[in-house]
Parts: sequence; C-alpha cells; structure tokens
Amino acid sequence: MKASQFLITTLKEAPADAEVVSHRLMTRAGMIRKLGAGIYNYMPMGLRVIRKVERIVREEMNRAGAVELTMPVVQPAEFWQESGRFEKMGPELMRVKDRHDRDFVVQPTSEEVVTDIARQELRSYKQLPKNLYQIQTKFRDERRPRFGLMRGREFIMKDAYSFDRDEASAKRSYEVMAQAYRRIFDRFGLKYRAVAADSGAIGGDLSEEFQVIAATGEDAIVYCPGSDYAANLEKAEALAPQGPRPAPANPLTRTPTPGKSTCADVAQFLGVPLATTVKSIVLATDTLDDAGAVKASKVWLLLLRGDHDMNEVKVGKVPGLDQGWRFATPPEIESHFGCRPGYLGPIGLKRPVELVVDREVAVMADWVCGGNEADVHLTGVNWGRDLPEPTRVADIRNIVEGDASPDGQGVLAIERGIEIGHVFYLGTKYSRSMAATFLDEDGKPKHFEMGCYGIGITRLPAAAIEQNHDERGIIWPDAIAPFTVVVCPIGMDRSPEVKAAADNLYSQLLEQGVDVILDDRGERPGAMFADWELIGVPHRITLGDRGVKAGQAEYQHRRDSAATAVPLAEVAAHVKARLTA
Amino acid sequence: MKASQFLITTLKEAPADAEVVSHRLMTRAGMIRKLGAGIYNYMPMGLRVIRKVERIVREEMNRAGAVELTMPVVQPAEFWQESGRFEKMGPELMRVKDRHDRDFVVQPTSEEVVTDIARQELRSYKQLPKNLYQIQTKFRDERRPRFGLMRGREFIMKDAYSFDRDEASAKRSYEVMAQAYRRIFDRFGLKYRAVAADSGAIGGDLSEEFQVIAATGEDAIVYCPGSDYAANLEKAEALAPQGPRPAPANPLTRTPTPGKSTCADVAQFLGVPLATTVKSIVLATDTLDDAGAVKASKVWLLLLRGDHDMNEVKVGKVPGLDQGWRFATPPEIESHFGCRPGYLGPIGLKRPVELVVDREVAVMADWVCGGNEADVHLTGVNWGRDLPEPTRVADIRNIVEGDASPDGQGVLAIERGIEIGHVFYLGTKYSRSMAATFLDEDGKPKHFEMGCYGIGITRLPAAAIEQNHDERGIIWPDAIAPFTVVVCPIGMDRSPEVKAAADNLYSQLLEQGVDVILDDRGERPGAMFADWELIGVPHRITLGDRGVKAGQAEYQHRRDSAATAVPLAEVAAHVKARLTA
Repeated sequence: MKASQFLITTLKEAPADAEVVSHRLMTRAGMIRKLGAGIYNYMPMGLRVIRKVERIVREEMNRAGAVELTMPVVQPAEFWQESGRFEKMGPELMRVKDRHDRDFVVQPTSEEVVTDIARQELRSYKQLPKNLYQIQTKFRDERRPRFGLMRGREFIMKDAYSFDRDEASAKRSYEVMAQAYRRIFDRFGLKYRAVAADSGAIGGDLSEEFQVIAATGEDAIVYCPGSDYAANLEKAEALAPQGPRPAPANPLTRTPTPGKSTCADVAQFLGVPLATTVKSIVLATDTLDDAGAVKASKVWLLLLRGDHDMNEVKVGKVPGLDQGWRFATPPEIESHFGCRPGYLGPIGLKRPVELVVDREVAVMADWVCGGNEADVHLTGVNWGRDLPEPTRVADIRNIVEGDASPDGQGVLAIERGIEIGHVFYLGTKYSRSMAATFLDEDGKPKHFEMGCYGIGITRLPAAAIEQNHDERGIIWPDAIAPFTVVVCPIGMDRSPEVKAAADNLYSQLLEQGVDVILDDRGERPGAMFADWELIGVPHRITLGDRGVKAGQAEYQHRRDSAATAVPLAEVAAHVKARLTA
Repeated sequence: MKASQFLITTLKEAPADAEVVSHRLMTRAGMIRKLGAGIYNYMPMGLRVIRKVERIVREEMNRAGAVELTMPVVQPAEFWQESGRFEKMGPELMRVKDRHDRDFVVQPTSEEVVTDIARQELRSYKQLPKNLYQIQTKFRDERRPRFGLMRGREFIMKDAYSFDRDEASAKRSYEVMAQAYRRIFDRFGLKYRAVAADSGAIGGDLSEEFQVIAATGEDAIVYCPGSDYAANLEKAEALAPQGPRPAPANPLTRTPTPGKSTCADVAQFLGVPLATTVKSIVLATDTLDDAGAVKASKVWLLLLRGDHDMNEVKVGKVPGLDQGWRFATPPEIESHFGCRPGYLGPIGLKRPVELVVDREVAVMADWVCGGNEADVHLTGVNWGRDLPEPTRVADIRNIVEGDASPDGQGVLAIERGIEIGHVFYLGTKYSRSMAATFLDEDGKPKHFEMGCYGIGITRLPAAAIEQNHDERGIIWPDAIAPFTVVVCPIGMDRSPEVKAAADNLYSQLLEQGVDVILDDRGERPGAMFADWELIGVPHRITLGDRGVKAGQAEYQHRRDSAATAVPLAEVAAHVKARLTA
C-alpha cells in the first residue's frame, strides 16, 4: 500500500470523552471514528487490524474443525420468546418492529438461532459433534457505552456453538475450543491468561475466560506465579487455612468502642491487627407465595475477617442462599440484633439468625466483633467457649495477594486483565427450552449438549493497545499490526536516489509477501515519524539522501530507542529476519 | 475440506414458498435456510460462495484504488434527518429506538455516514479523489420479500462512494469504477451486460446497471447484437422514424366499433394491422397551494401506437410532466372527452387537453383512434388535415425488438437480466444537503462531487444460479463455486485401495492450492452424485475399486454428459488443467 492511496487521518488531540488509552490512541491514530454513543466507524487503518484478528480466529477455528456460517443481524423475536430471553433480558437487548408490527431483535448473541439450526439440520448422532461459528456484527444497547471499542454497543464478535451427544463428548468439544483459543491468543502476540471463571446464570459448570493482561483492565485475575493456576476473582477459591485453631488465650471482654463502627477503626482504636477482627454482614432471603408475594423472610449473618471482602458469587452458592438473597433492611437488623449496624456480632442475639462463617474465621481464636450494643465490641471471642462451634463454614471471601494457591504450588498474586474470550459449557439449557433434539444410536430423541465460545473481535485491538503502548502511541504485535513495515523516505520529491531506493525496497518487500506501506505523502520527517509511532507500525525503515547515496538505510523497531544503520542492499533481509508474523 | 467435517444439508424437496429456481436450489443444496420473511441463515455451503464473491470484489476494488472501511449497521437517525431521507423514505427504512428513546436506522445504504466521514476527514483537495467502500450487512424492510436471496430484507452489499474535486474528476472516478466492475464481473465467470440506466430520483446523469443475463430475470435489457449498445428498458431510446410521413390516402371516417374498446380488438374487427391504430392515455398534473392542497389540475392526452407500451420514466421527463403526474380520474376524462375510456381520441374534445405525441405516432398517416363517442372509432385520421400538426413530440414508449439501435449499428433485441451492480454519478446531492465541503486549491470550500457504486454480494449467487443450472441442480462457475473439485470415492470403507487413492489425491490437490472437498461420508454413489450435482461443484473425480486397482479414475465436469477415464496418476493434473479459477 502507498500512503497517498490510503486514508491516514491522525489527530493531535484525543476527543474529550476518551477516558482510556486505547480509546484515545485508536481515535488519534485514525482507526475509529465515533458515529454515536458506543457506535463507531471502523476506519481503513483500524479495519486492517480487525481483519487480521478475524483471519487468525477464522484459521484456528477451521483448524479446530468448526464450520463457519452466518446468522442474521436482525432476528425474528419468536426464537427469543421460545428461549424466554425476549422477556428476561433487559433493555440491553435491542428490540425492533418491522413494517407489519412484528417483533425482531438485533442480535447480541445467537444461541437461539443456532439451536434452531441444530434442531432442523442435526438429526442424527452420526452428525455429531458439530461446532458452528460466525464472525458477525452484534449489538448490545449498553446503558453506559464507553471506552471506545472496549464497551461499545455495536461490535464484531466471533461466536461458536458446539453440539454433542452427551456430556463427556461436550466436554471434549469444550477442551478442543479451549486449546484452539490458546493457539489464537498465542498468535495474537499478546500476554494473556486463561482463567477459570464462574459459569454464572447461563448454566453449566465449565467456563474459562481469556484475559489480556493490562494494568488498566476492568477484571481482577488471580494467579499462581509458581504454577498454571489462574482464575477470576469471582471464581478463585480461598483454601481453608492449614493447621489447628489456636487455643483461647484471652477472656471474653465487653469493650467500649465509642463511634468506632468499622473493623479498621476498631483495630486502630484497640491497637490490634485488622486480621484479628471479624465483620458481620447481614443478609436476608424471602420465601414467596404462588402470587409472588413475600410469605416469609429469613435473616442470615455472615462472618468475615476484618481485612477480607465478601465475594457475592461465592455467597450465592451457599445452600439456602443459592436461590437469591438480598441485604437485610435496618428493621430486620434491629429486630434480630437489637442494635444498629456497626456493632453487630454473633453473640447475644435477640432472635436467631442463620450463621455462615468464612473458612478463615472458623479457625480464628481471640477475635474481636461487635457486641450487639451501640459503641461496644467484644474482644477475646472464641469458638466453642463463647459461642457454639460453627456448623456452616464456607469460602465466601475474595482472594487477597499472598493467599495459598488452591493447587498447593505457592501463594497467589493478583493482576488486571481485559476479557477478550470466553469458553463455556452450556449443557442442555437451550436445547431443553427450545426442544432441540437428535436421534441417538438407540433411536430415541436426546437433547443436545451444548457449549458456546466467544471472542470479542473489535475489543481485541483495544485490549492489545492497553497492553502495548507508550507515550508516543501504539506498539502493535506484528500479527495484528495494520501494516507490519513502514518505509519512510525523506525528501523523496527532491532526491531521485531516495525515490528509487524507496520504490525498489517497497516492491521487494511486497514481492516477499510483507505487509508494507510506503509513506509517499511527502510529509516532513518529524510529522511522518510521529504519525507512524502513533499508529504503531512495529518495523520502520528510513531512507535519507545521504544514507542512500552511501548505500545505507536505517532500521528501527517501534520498541527500539534508536535506529540501526543497515546496508541498503541488506535492509529487506534485515527486516524480514525480525518479523514474527 | 472433508465432507464429514463440514455441514452438508441437502433436501429432496424445496419449500413451498420458493418461487424461483435459485431459491429452490439454494435451499435444497443447503446453502441458505429461511429464518423469517426475507431473512436467511447463510449456511456453511452458501457462505463459501458468498466469501468467494466478496474476495473477488475486494481484490478488484483495492486494485482500483478504493479504500475499505466499515460503517455501522445501526446508525443514528440524525444523519438521515440531515439528508432528509429519514422522513422521505418509506417503511422500507427500518427505524428503531434505543433504550433512551433515541432514533436509529438499520442501514439500507450509507450515503449519509460516508458523507459525514468525508466532511470530517477529507479537508483538502490534496486528499482527493478518494473512494471509500464497505462490504457490510444491509437491511431493507421490503413490503413483499421473496425469491430467496434475490429480494431479501437482510442482505450483504458492497457499497462504494467516490469523492472528487469537480465534475470532470468525478466522471473519471466513475469510469474507473465502471472498468473495475467489468473486471469483477468477468472474474465471476457469468454472462452479463453493463447497461445504461436512468439515474432516477437519486440525481446525477451517469448511471449503468450490471445485469446478469437470465431468462428468469426481472429486468428487460435492450441491446444491439451488432454493437456495444445496451440499456435497460426505462432508458433505451426509441429513435424518431426515418423518412417523411406518407401522404393521406383515405378520408376521415366515423366507424362504428361496438364493444371494441382496445386497439387489438379494433384492429381485428376492422381487419387492419395493430400498428395502424393509436391508443390514447390520459394523465393529469396538479398544482398545489402552500398548504399542499390541490389548487388546479391539468389533463394530458398521450398518443402511442396501438402495439407500443408507455414508458413511465420517459413520460416523467416530458416538460410539464417532470414534476410528477398521475393517471386522470374517470370524471376528469368524462369532462374533457365527453366519453368513457376505450373510445378516446384527439379529435372532437369537449375541453382542451395538453397533447403529447410519441415520435412514432407523429409520422403515421391514415391511422385509427377513438371517436370520443361510445362504440365509435375514427379511421383514416391524418395530421395536418384532420387535426393540427403535433407540437409536442417525444419518445414516451418502450423499445420493442426490431427497433433501430440508437447507435445506428442495426436493430435492437431484448433479453432478461438480474441487476447485480450499479454505478452512479451522484453529483452534489448529498454533499449539499449535508454541507460536506473541502478546501480547494484556491482556499475556498467546495462541495464534493460524489458517485456511488453497489454490488449485491448475496444476490449474486442467486443470479449465477438463475443463469447456470439444469434439472439436476446448480452449475457453478469455478470462481464462485463453494468447492471447485469434489473427490467421490466409492466404497471407501470396504476398499483400502480406494481409501488410499482418495486420501492421496485429496492431499495432492490441497497442496496445489485447489479448493477440494473429499466426500468421506460413506454415502452410496447415487445419493453422493445427486448431492454434488445439486450443490453444483463444477469438477468431480470418482474413484472406484475396480478403476483404482487398474490405475484409473474418472473425471466429469458438471456440464459433461458422461465421465472420462483418466489414469489415476494423471488425474490431478487433468483436473487442474481444466480449472478456470
């Protein structure tokens, strides 16, 4: 490509609403242009990156035996009514009516349509397993679209769906995808982690997220530097502490703590470590009658160490809380504890509560908690002596750095990531709701076992930038750079030697299949270099009049601090030897 | 590709609603599946064809210097309000509201958004000319979607838009695209014509349609077998007849024609050629007041030869009718002609009308027309003698076979076509309505001169099938076949020799870059051949046990009536020599 024939639209300034670096740099580099909230034009420079991402994904999906098709962007609502999502999903599902007032949705994903395809086309176990995927425009009407392509409303997603005879086969299909995702992410040239994830509301029990590591990521990733263990914060298990509980050393003591209603304040006031305090969190669950009205409510007390945070996903798995819970109301707290929040504890309750004790709290001795009396805490609290041994002990807290790794291979660390891919074992959630069956070997209809597998195609470039940039701009990995090499001739219009050398080098690289752009715009060196550093082309060759006449060119990788002189005759080979894609 | 890993979903029967052969065959071949009215899944077999079409279009667009980008499917209505199309377009424009009740459209084309991009990014004449294109999902909420991909609601279109400094440059950009379209259509391997088209309501005066020739096509194409001349029926000019008008030979005679109200009936009744009769068509035009109410109306009489049809596009260009016209109402006809339709004519009117005479009628002598009296016609009618010489003579009829070619190179023929591409000089229609300007060399802002250029990516496979099929199924040109070659082993499970030969041949062809599929499904020969003939793969190699053991294979092109024996060792070279893409 010659720059004069392309559309290069770099900007000095980022738009005021660009909060994150990828949004700022993609806009300044002319890769995207905002058309509306969360809706972007993919400009020529950005589209080249997106197409390279698509190509890698497509090649690896095909290699893994998946078959590509395309499902419509605008889908009849009837399929979504069948699965129940037309009613269940909130306003993020964009609903639209056609000229005949029939309901449609603009697809956010395609579980329903692909399940319809399966129930029509996959009639026999002989056709299984099958994995169908598409790379297609999606729409989610986000309440607060932001961060450019990171959280847009219209985006491109690769969504794949596997169909299997039984659970064992479905798990093999899942594994094939998880492997394919590793190959895809390896090829992108990004630092990433595959982390165990909670399968959440969508059902099933196997789920991994592919997270691109970036300090600015929205997600916390828990990993073990000494092993392969990685999980997101929701999922990462806090092991039960090793060894026995220490014996009680101190008496139970009623201690005035005037105005000290947080564990941190109490610990400081008493001069004890925060880790010796215990916080009380009060939840409630409701039983509903047939009309959906609250028939009865139960109050729950959760005990966590003062320096730990509650993990809502884990709490949602505790038996009794797994059908939904809420925080208790002030009257509920008052009626059970006889006290306002800030001084609550498990001893001296007015009415009994369901007690759930974090694994860590269950092995503490001589701890501090609220006294169920304003401005009073208890110190020297001990299980078995001051209150009964806990019967309901569970992992209900977030991991913190330094916790033991669940695989026993050391201690855990935490870093930030951006979720770009997700592999998910779905089970029969959709095949049951949509009555999608095949005839098994025994001649009987069975529900498909399904998995679903997404990659955020347009999100990936943004994540790559969050991970790879400096103060001058983007630094693309070779595999997804809009161009791999840029040839920058200086004074091409004045020096026939520079022009000849540039044209020759450009043709040479093109012939060798290198994705090269020749900057023939006639910009001054400063502006030209600034453009390419902003755009982030990883390899640059500069040709100047004096150098060319002396048979020299200059090579500089985007991460190099200075250029290297290379004989002109060898520069094509020099750059080719440095390409990683 | 191995068939067992792909998704082959052929059907014995076409759906009841499939009216045209391409819809029937694409459905039976498992290329598309209907999801809703005019909305289709592109199944794996069909998507391969679509992707090949896309690739050819993309390569030639790039070669022609156009630059690819992607504009959103869901577009904010504000741009469409700016151009006026949000209000002007009918319900075929799909409008949708987001969660904040803001208006959006699902793009049917992208003139507005690309014009917005141009006014932001193309600031200087130095950046011109520029041609921006996308290959993207479009939606048109057709009143009556039908014919499968031929007239769907959701479809993929390549839409390109050129931006130029002035009209001369815009016409060069137009010409570059018209040439690129010829290369694209040549590469598809289809019989097509580029025909002059009317530029219609969109404005401008240069327009060509690319029509794939097919007997089932919706459009009539007028062409000259002795020259390059081709135009669609709306556009093709009917020349004024050569030579002088014959002298009157017969007297004007009032002739009773009881119950004969059509030219054909009258001609038969009188025993004269239909070409000696003249039909009267009565139109009306309205003048509106400021409130849009009809202030005054004018009645027009159009005279055409009895065997000719009125051309509405040409009528719409007659001065006085070019701001819109309608057919006259029965009361209007009665009050001007004193007679009901069927016996109308230009002689003996009750009130004057505006007369428009077709070129052909203007040179007729001794003609027949209605007598403005029920059951009466006039014969021996002559200009100058029985009524004044016509003052308003125009080409207002459709061409018929045998008319003289406008280029003087013989007579015209008519064939049917399917419109697949359109190149259009737009002028400043959009740049003016959206105030899109650049700074010209003189430092002054000027409106862009624009052109737009479409290709119906998903319509093309349907058109290709309308042109290329037989009673057994589709016959793809090599360039856009889902697979170019199919290897059909017979009894692969029973004969290790067949299996080895098939695997070997498959690998050999793959290595040579041939797009080959190996049918390893284990189907019986009859069902296997029927599938591939239905799907329309152009080249087939069959391997049987006896043949393989004798070192023989069989090659058959989809158009051949029988297979040819080819030595097994040479069959790869044999088939390769026959590939055209």
